[in-house]
Amino acid sequence: TLHVDWDVVTAEKGGYDHFMLKEIYEQPKAIRDTMAGRIKDGQVDLSREIGMSEDQINNIERIHIVACGTAYHAGLVGKYVIEDLVRIPVETDIASEYRYRNPIITPNTLVVVISQSGETADTLAALREAKKAGARVLAITNVVGSSVAREADDVIITWAGPEIAVASTKAYTSQLIAIYLLGAYFARIRGTRAESELADIVTALQQLPEKADQVLGNTTAIQQFAQEIARHEDLFFLGRGLDYAVALEGSLKLKEITYIHSEAYAAGELKHGTLALIEEGVPVISLATQEAIYDKMVSNIIEVKARGAHVLGLALEGDQELHKSVDQVFTIPKTLPLLTPVLAVIPLQLIAYYACVARGYDVDKPRNLAKSVTVE
Amino acid sequence: TLHVDWDVVTAEKGGYDHFMLKEIYEQPKAIRDTMAGRIKDGQVDLSREIGMSEDQINNIERIHIVACGTAYHAGLVGKYVIEDLVRIPVETDIASEYRYRNPIITPNTLVVVISQSGETADTLAALREAKKAGARVLAITNVVGSSVAREADDVIITWAGPEIAVASTKAYTSQLIAIYLLGAYFARIRGTRAESELADIVTALQQLPEKADQVLGNTTAIQQFAQEIARHEDLFFLGRGLDYAVALEGSLKLKEITYIHSEAYAAGELKHGTLALIEEGVPVISLATQEAIYDKMVSNIIEVKARGAHVLGLALEGDQELHKSVDQVFTIPKTLPLLTPVLAVIPLQLIAYYACVARGYDVDKPRNLAKSVTVE
Repeated sequence: TLHVDWDVVTAEKGGYDHFMLKEIYEQPKAIRDTMAGRIKDGQVDLSREIGMSEDQINNIERIHIVACGTAYHAGLVGKYVIEDLVRIPVETDIASEYRYRNPIITPNTLVVVISQSGETADTLAALREAKKAGARVLAITNVVGSSVAREADDVIITWAGPEIAVASTKAYTSQLIAIYLLGAYFARIRGTRAESELADIVTALQQLPEKADQVLGNTTAIQQFAQEIARHEDLFFLGRGLDYAVALEGSLKLKEITYIHSEAYAAGELKHGTLALIEEGVPVISLATQEAIYDKMVSNIIEVKARGAHVLGLALEGDQELHKSVDQVFTIPKTLPLLTPVLAVIPLQLIAYYACVARGYDVDKPRNLAKSVTVE
Repeated sequence: TLHVDWDVVTAEKGGYDHFMLKEIYEQPKAIRDTMAGRIKDGQVDLSREIGMSEDQINNIERIHIVACGTAYHAGLVGKYVIEDLVRIPVETDIASEYRYRNPIITPNTLVVVISQSGETADTLAALREAKKAGARVLAITNVVGSSVAREADDVIITWAGPEIAVASTKAYTSQLIAIYLLGAYFARIRGTRAESELADIVTALQQLPEKADQVLGNTTAIQQFAQEIARHEDLFFLGRGLDYAVALEGSLKLKEITYIHSEAYAAGELKHGTLALIEEGVPVISLATQEAIYDKMVSNIIEVKARGAHVLGLALEGDQELHKSVDQVFTIPKTLPLLTPVLAVIPLQLIAYYACVARGYDVDKPRNLAKSVTVE
């Protein structure tokens, strides 16, 4: 009966109003579970997941990361992380583009496919193309026994647990963790990073669940900002480097469930066209979590501010500068620059969530979208 | 005096209302001039422009194309073209991202920078970083004696002539020509394409100015569509493969001068989020010029149509299918699939131009933007 169904659903939501919010709050656990058993004696060990010999790993010449939607955005972070840690050239591509463009695959190309469901049609087709072309395929997926998991040569399962909301949240952060583990594992085997640096990364990874909890612990400012943007129809995200990759994901979240036309830009590209769209009152979410490019980012923020934008700045705890140039600042705990995306994405997920609620739309089932895209 | 100034400007515009329109119509000449002297006996010869020996060209292992704005979009076409013709892995990156992300540059990496003015700050900085890291740098620029031209190891000048309008048009198509010439030249030396295929490419290149003239000869339907979209504030472009690269450029043009919030998507990504934004009456410009992925593209068009979008389809002459699924079709002459972007971008430039005029904005000097971005 209806009564029972409702009770069951409520129980499944564990006291949260929507699956999306529940899943956002499950991220500390998802992050912890995805690391569990993969860090031994302070070192990343994926030898159970990855059947490649040390020689095979040493021989990788090129990595292609192939995915769709949110998983593609995790792949964009993956390019930065793996190139930085392992110094292998990485190309991240949209699966529906990759499979039709005759990519250059050599026997020493590793293709990494990422799919929450493991059934994404274009990603699965790309996996098959890559195998046919002779590449080894490593899958990052949330579903044991899915098509992608079965057909890949190596599989890293993200232990995020079932994700029900159409807008992916904990799957994304778990995919990021899988990527960090992969990068650290390859870096150790290929000797591209000192033991001490890798130990620092492991320590910082292990602190992430607690830091994610901190971000989730005080969301008042985020809720206020979400209320403000809920009445707008256009919004921009700005970032550089890893912050740009996170901005793309934040923008997709907002788009998917609030139907606000949101777009993310590499901040350095503003002057090459997009600045024309910035006018009085337009909300802009600016990420400034990367210390090496902080000053460049602040100067971009000042530009959009000068055109009247209403700016939320996302910065690291202890930031003393950003409040001078933006309307509102939200801070996240400090971690290694490479790991920041895991924490930076959380407030963006929450902004999308609360703006959707404020607009009165169906959070868990946005119009026109399905959870797993199993057709092309 | 004011009177004289006005006369001079009018004369410079050669009878056109705006520099942008004049420059759009100068494209057949710009394309022809950029090829002139570089095709000899039916073969592309860039030995005057490129000082690399055959050995050096044969040893290239990787190409990075680095640029900003419109030139970056030309670089995205460049990735397709060069990977297809020469089978060297190409990575196209935004200059403001590339210079700060510690890219993997080896002695056998060729870095290709593209800049109309040759003074774009981020592109110039990227060029210097690349040289410092030991790469050979090839520049594609429109200005002889510019900083980029002076500092690069090899230079291909685009002979587009001075471009005055802030929104770049003839510089883009000339950059594409430079890329095709480069691809064909490398393919000949490295033997990655048969003589007969290269001869077909040369023939098709030589026919482009006339075909561009044809596109420019009948723009009534384009003007009508531009009138219709002028009252909208949001618009989407869709494409796959090379059409996606062109869609990004068409979207930038519209954004720059009409301030319509326009965004381009890889059509296969629609179901992964963007479809949520498609509602009754939203204008969508869909490119379907690539035969190999035509059916996939039509099925994406049917999806947006089903959600009530108002769709303009861009197809090849003789197309008998698209009119069944879209509201309006505009066709361009047939050429080789690789060369289609040169013709496909022209109607998109014209849509931006006429929509800007209909909205009553300053075509040649959009708000907030400068012609050359010589500061970061």
